[in-house]
Amino acid sequence: MKTNSVKVEIITIGDEILIGQIVDTNSAWMAVELNKAGFELAQITSVHDDAKHIIDSLELALTRADVVLFTGGIGPTKDDITKQTLSSYFGMSLIFSDEVYQNIERVLINRSRAVNELTRTQAFVPDGCTVIQNTVGTAPITWFEKEGKVIVSMPGVPNEMKHVMSTEIIPRLSQRFETPSIIHKNVIVQGYPESALAMKIADWENALPEDIHLAYLPNYGIIKLRLSGISDDPLPMEFSINQQIAGLTEILGDAIVAFDDVPVENMIGNLLAAKGMTLATAESCTGGHIAHKITSVSGSSDYFKGSVIAYSNEVKINVLNVTADDIEQYGAVSKEVVEQMAVNIRRLLKTDVAIATSGIAGPGGGTTEKPVGTVWISVCSGSEIVTKMFKFGNVRLQNIERTTQTALLMLKEII
Amino acid sequence: MKTNSVKVEIITIGDEILIGQIVDTNSAWMAVELNKAGFELAQITSVHDDAKHIIDSLELALTRADVVLFTGGIGPTKDDITKQTLSSYFGMSLIFSDEVYQNIERVLINRSRAVNELTRTQAFVPDGCTVIQNTVGTAPITWFEKEGKVIVSMPGVPNEMKHVMSTEIIPRLSQRFETPSIIHKNVIVQGYPESALAMKIADWENALPEDIHLAYLPNYGIIKLRLSGISDDPLPMEFSINQQIAGLTEILGDAIVAFDDVPVENMIGNLLAAKGMTLATAESCTGGHIAHKITSVSGSSDYFKGSVIAYSNEVKINVLNVTADDIEQYGAVSKEVVEQMAVNIRRLLKTDVAIATSGIAGPGGGTTEKPVGTVWISVCSGSEIVTKMFKFGNVRLQNIERTTQTALLMLKEII
Repeated sequence: MKTNSVKVEIITIGDEILIGQIVDTNSAWMAVELNKAGFELAQITSVHDDAKHIIDSLELALTRADVVLFTGGIGPTKDDITKQTLSSYFGMSLIFSDEVYQNIERVLINRSRAVNELTRTQAFVPDGCTVIQNTVGTAPITWFEKEGKVIVSMPGVPNEMKHVMSTEIIPRLSQRFETPSIIHKNVIVQGYPESALAMKIADWENALPEDIHLAYLPNYGIIKLRLSGISDDPLPMEFSINQQIAGLTEILGDAIVAFDDVPVENMIGNLLAAKGMTLATAESCTGGHIAHKITSVSGSSDYFKGSVIAYSNEVKINVLNVTADDIEQYGAVSKEVVEQMAVNIRRLLKTDVAIATSGIAGPGGGTTEKPVGTVWISVCSGSEIVTKMFKFGNVRLQNIERTTQTALLMLKEII
Repeated sequence: MKTNSVKVEIITIGDEILIGQIVDTNSAWMAVELNKAGFELAQITSVHDDAKHIIDSLELALTRADVVLFTGGIGPTKDDITKQTLSSYFGMSLIFSDEVYQNIERVLINRSRAVNELTRTQAFVPDGCTVIQNTVGTAPITWFEKEGKVIVSMPGVPNEMKHVMSTEIIPRLSQRFETPSIIHKNVIVQGYPESALAMKIADWENALPEDIHLAYLPNYGIIKLRLSGISDDPLPMEFSINQQIAGLTEILGDAIVAFDDVPVENMIGNLLAAKGMTLATAESCTGGHIAHKITSVSGSSDYFKGSVIAYSNEVKINVLNVTADDIEQYGAVSKEVVEQMAVNIRRLLKTDVAIATSGIAGPGGGTTEKPVGTVWISVCSGSEIVTKMFKFGNVRLQNIERTTQTALLMLKEII
């Protein structure tokens, strides 16, 4: 990133992140939304519910950034101290706000609850800050200004944070600061290890204009190449990035599987919807994860009919009509069985295309011949059927994830 | 947290976290492992691939912490600059290491690949640091010491980071520093909003010993209460925390659903395995997410037979034998339909217990009578059947998550 951007830092408050009890998913969401509005996220800092630590981090962030966004630490319970800490840092006292109280009552009535002694304390706010109502939760948002910089404290509960960021904080920041445009474009490449890809495109990479930044992001068998630029004038920058992508396409050809950072389940959804085709899955080792990925897309009920999760051989035989003899002869993790699963689920659920998986996710169940990580995937469309074997790793959840990702990419090819 | 702990800070390096392209899941895992070994994670900082930013963060971290762990930014491509940056900060030059080169060759041979010009550059390491071999990847780990403090740079690829943390870094840190014991215990409470729970246990909370810290973590209808203590002598501390939990149990009784931070799918797995019972699911709105959660547990094939994901009514009728008339009369999202799904999947897959879900995950499909978020869940065991309706929110993925969590808790009750 170059200069003249407006810099934002996020400070997350809460012991739960620092003892590993929760993963901070808020910051990634905030980063994307801030980028869209032209703000650059310069640092994320996670600190404990500790007044000195909170203030130290704030003072450091203010030396670097124009905006500091706090998330978390503003619940009604004793372990949350952010409101008191910021209030005393800015030399304000906490006063009762009728308006906040009425909002809390409104929110709680929607949840069929009444205000109690403790939720009532959330109506106290620092006297002198700007208060933003939290229409989906009980903790108010507080907005402070200091020497031209903005400091905001908001809830860490994801849906409350997202709602107030989208409806209030980003619009207000956009009014308050003039921002350039930040443009990111992604090129998704399949079939290259990272270093081989880097060598293949070395000349192109070395000739990139100074103001376009390239990053490599390997992810389960694909590599995302991200080109980023920042400019007051978005159109020439977008044109320049697109020109570079055109050059890259000449070099990589078919190895490029997509031009945007769209998850493969969304690409498949768009393809199936456009072609009016329907899909079913028969899953053994993925245990429903493929169906889950597909149904995480809004509108998937238009093309996804359903699945049979055949975790036991009994279900493979009785529901999916896999031949018992074949399971006996070849084993459940075999070309013969996974192909029958694919063909039969397509017939059973009367769909156009189908995916089937059978493998050893681990940690148990491996043999010398078929170690943990051995996975068969079959995809079929009409009479066309493609079946492949893979050797993934030793980690159960990674095997499920990689099988899912690979199966979806195989389906995309066949549609 | 109190004093006398050994403080660690994590610095993650990489634009991808700060533009929201990936979520930092590494830090949570590292926090848990560090805690187990008696180290306190004092701060997590995420910075860009920028030399000045990396060094500034390191110098600040060194003013507060005993150990600084860098993750990420050490791949073979041009955007990764951590190795060069740390090398020049410590006044070292990069030299070629035969030993590292041989390790790279070994790792690549396992992946059926050869060393190329770019992967060869990873064999250059700072002259004077301690090099730790990365047996599952090509980027070596570098360990520096400065004024009694330890600085380590390791890969950001999760399985490489996890492997080297478990096998090398934590064992070496444990040898290098004397650490106290950090004890966390969790009590999982159901049926209370956060503020009502806080009021219910206020007297108990106020009487907690100074050295035991309490935190509230609300999560989809349950609240985790976490009690933490740090001590050179773990046994008395553990005894003291257990005493407090005994007191809490007297106050909350049945509202306590578990005493450890075990995901409900693991609790169910343990229960089913202990009782020799088997499980199936019939999922509509959860689209396989319940099956996925269940099969994410190692050994689940012992008690989980499979599922039918009946996303379309056709599958509900043809595979699950739900009466077409009932779907017509009551709608797919109804008590009548979800109960048939539960009873019939149990019969079809010949299991002891079953879960069924049917609901409107959104964003489309809602009506005035059945708005988005309306969900029916049914669980059955033998002839016993429990069916409930819920009104969750407007966010698709949250509805899937909440339905899954609630269904698993309902199943746990009935087993």
